[in-house]
Amino acid sequence: MKNFDYNIPTRVHFGKGQISKLRGEVKNFGHNVLLVYGGNSIKRNGIYDQVMEQLNDSDINVFELSGIAPNPRIDSARDGVKLCKECKIDVILAVGGGSVIDCSKLIAAGAFYDGDPWDLVLKSSLIKEALPIISVLTLSATGSEMDGFAVISNMETNDKLGMGGEILKPRVSILDPEYTYTVPANQTAAGTADIMSHIIETYFHDVEGAYLQDRFAESLLKTCIEFGPIAVKEPENYDARANLMWAGSHAINGMISYGTDVGWSVHPMEHELSAYYDITHGVGLAILTPRWMKHILSDKTVGKFVDYGVNVWGIDSSLDKFEIANMAIEKTYDFFASIGIPMNLREVGIDEENLEVMAEFASKRGAKYGYVSLSKEDVLEIYKMSL
Amino acid sequence: MKNFDYNIPTRVHFGKGQISKLRGEVKNFGHNVLLVYGGNSIKRNGIYDQVMEQLNDSDINVFELSGIAPNPRIDSARDGVKLCKECKIDVILAVGGGSVIDCSKLIAAGAFYDGDPWDLVLKSSLIKEALPIISVLTLSATGSEMDGFAVISNMETNDKLGMGGEILKPRVSILDPEYTYTVPANQTAAGTADIMSHIIETYFHDVEGAYLQDRFAESLLKTCIEFGPIAVKEPENYDARANLMWAGSHAINGMISYGTDVGWSVHPMEHELSAYYDITHGVGLAILTPRWMKHILSDKTVGKFVDYGVNVWGIDSSLDKFEIANMAIEKTYDFFASIGIPMNLREVGIDEENLEVMAEFASKRGAKYGYVSLSKEDVLEIYKMSL
Repeated sequence: MKNFDYNIPTRVHFGKGQISKLRGEVKNFGHNVLLVYGGNSIKRNGIYDQVMEQLNDSDINVFELSGIAPNPRIDSARDGVKLCKECKIDVILAVGGGSVIDCSKLIAAGAFYDGDPWDLVLKSSLIKEALPIISVLTLSATGSEMDGFAVISNMETNDKLGMGGEILKPRVSILDPEYTYTVPANQTAAGTADIMSHIIETYFHDVEGAYLQDRFAESLLKTCIEFGPIAVKEPENYDARANLMWAGSHAINGMISYGTDVGWSVHPMEHELSAYYDITHGVGLAILTPRWMKHILSDKTVGKFVDYGVNVWGIDSSLDKFEIANMAIEKTYDFFASIGIPMNLREVGIDEENLEVMAEFASKRGAKYGYVSLSKEDVLEIYKMSL
Repeated sequence: MKNFDYNIPTRVHFGKGQISKLRGEVKNFGHNVLLVYGGNSIKRNGIYDQVMEQLNDSDINVFELSGIAPNPRIDSARDGVKLCKECKIDVILAVGGGSVIDCSKLIAAGAFYDGDPWDLVLKSSLIKEALPIISVLTLSATGSEMDGFAVISNMETNDKLGMGGEILKPRVSILDPEYTYTVPANQTAAGTADIMSHIIETYFHDVEGAYLQDRFAESLLKTCIEFGPIAVKEPENYDARANLMWAGSHAINGMISYGTDVGWSVHPMEHELSAYYDITHGVGLAILTPRWMKHILSDKTVGKFVDYGVNVWGIDSSLDKFEIANMAIEKTYDFFASIGIPMNLREVGIDEENLEVMAEFASKRGAKYGYVSLSKEDVLEIYKMSL
């Protein structure tokens, strides 16, 4: 096990009706609130009204920033930073999924930075201070509600880049599984794939002795495999929504990565796809993951695949190790297909055209430093397998 | 899954050499430090010197309170509170195992209380404020390094009572697995049993849909079963010590109990044994646990035992459910015996004499509210099975 510094400071109010804690939490941080959200869905499903009821208080002034896109854009963050400075915002209230929370993180940091917020995306070390963030989660997927990361897109430059910092971790997150009841089946499936990809990318590592972390990761994967299909079929199944929501937070809050070495592989490959084609992140991850697994399976990695196959998928441990590995990869593919995810790039509108340039960027921007180092040629092959 | 408010604020510096972070952490909280520790073991194994080297700073004044007993006594806490008030202590530095950290928690709260600290043990709601605590852990067992609980003994009244509060959670804990290398085999085994008991008491609950929590609990149990015997045989096996240490913290920091209902059963029964006979807590837990399991096995509880047997001990799931349950209980007993724990009360000097009165107290003080409610007669029978 490697050394680590554990810090998961977010306080979480988890469960039905926990929105009732919002007013008190907001007032802990100040008076002027920037409410950040996406489109009209939180107005249609009533969450907006419940939030506004909590903010209806003589001590609270609400300013709104709406229209945050699914792959959040630098322009929205720029607007938010401007509002923070003009309105002397004390606390940012992010109501939505990962995109809204991610965008809020950049706004929170940008409020204390004099230059263009895009600088902070390019260089996280410039982030010295940030406004406190409270999140109200409406989609189980990115885990942004308990971590310090954000992914921001710049459509002018076709960039989709990650940034992060300890001080960007939300101070408080309200996680009500009922708030995800109206998430449609395809987004529920994509969210499940996103969660599973976070776990898989973390689980495939080379560090000796991170036994507990690996068992935790397997627990999270089993939870997604158990409840993803239920949530897709029965959107108002509370325990399915609750388990997915809590698994999503733990998939990336550090619990399974502290003590290991995480080399992201599939995420950098997918980020190019959604930067170029604006596809749903979780769908891209689901398409690429089993192809990536097939590509990296070797004498060196097969042991990890055996753990994965036996402990996660319940494959008979007495079989040949490559047989176990290949069965596990097949089960991974079948699982994503079974919850309705389109499993080929062509189905989501991606053809050969930009594969070369995307492969080059993906390798340079992270896949080279993954669990198995991926060159441009490796990435290109994985993309082609995924067509 | 039940509603919960998650809050695990302790920052942890985990791994070899992390003591180097101590000076900076102490100075974050102030100048006057009360160093709390047990006997001479930290002087013999060099930990005391490493701590003092960190505290050797012109901005730090050290006051010492030593001699904290394995079942920490109210008298030590009274001495500590007096020191805090006289020396204007800013931060308490607890160097030791759970007893030292537990005692430090009462001191931390007592520093802000005008009456006798024992009042705070009897009534946790009197705890309004507390000094910050930094712990340097030297024994993997109680999990006190990441939770808000403490157990304090009053030998005059034969009382051993739990107390707790969110503000008693250590702010920072330094967990260096090498600091447990000198823990002898019998204490390593008892610590492993203590950790496993925390997990088992949490795992046996009635709440529907706490699937992820149960898988996490099984992960922790598997970790103890894997590494307990290794640490007993190879005291300087880093990964064994590291996995046990991290499992011990997660066993009781809330991660597996948030969202469930925890009814402690074996702990209240054991607390009477160690209050009356001052035996090692973990040994008492190991002796009682398999007998408690046998006593509560029924049509109503057998399903939980099947999960436990199949997922933790790898028992064939196609067997009869009661057969699985009984095999799991037997494996639990055999495991504790295999790591050298004396598995009968007589072996640790306990006979029939006080069983009745202990059974009465154990039932009243908690076992009545356990996973299966235990009357005085139930407890007495479990004690007798354990003789």
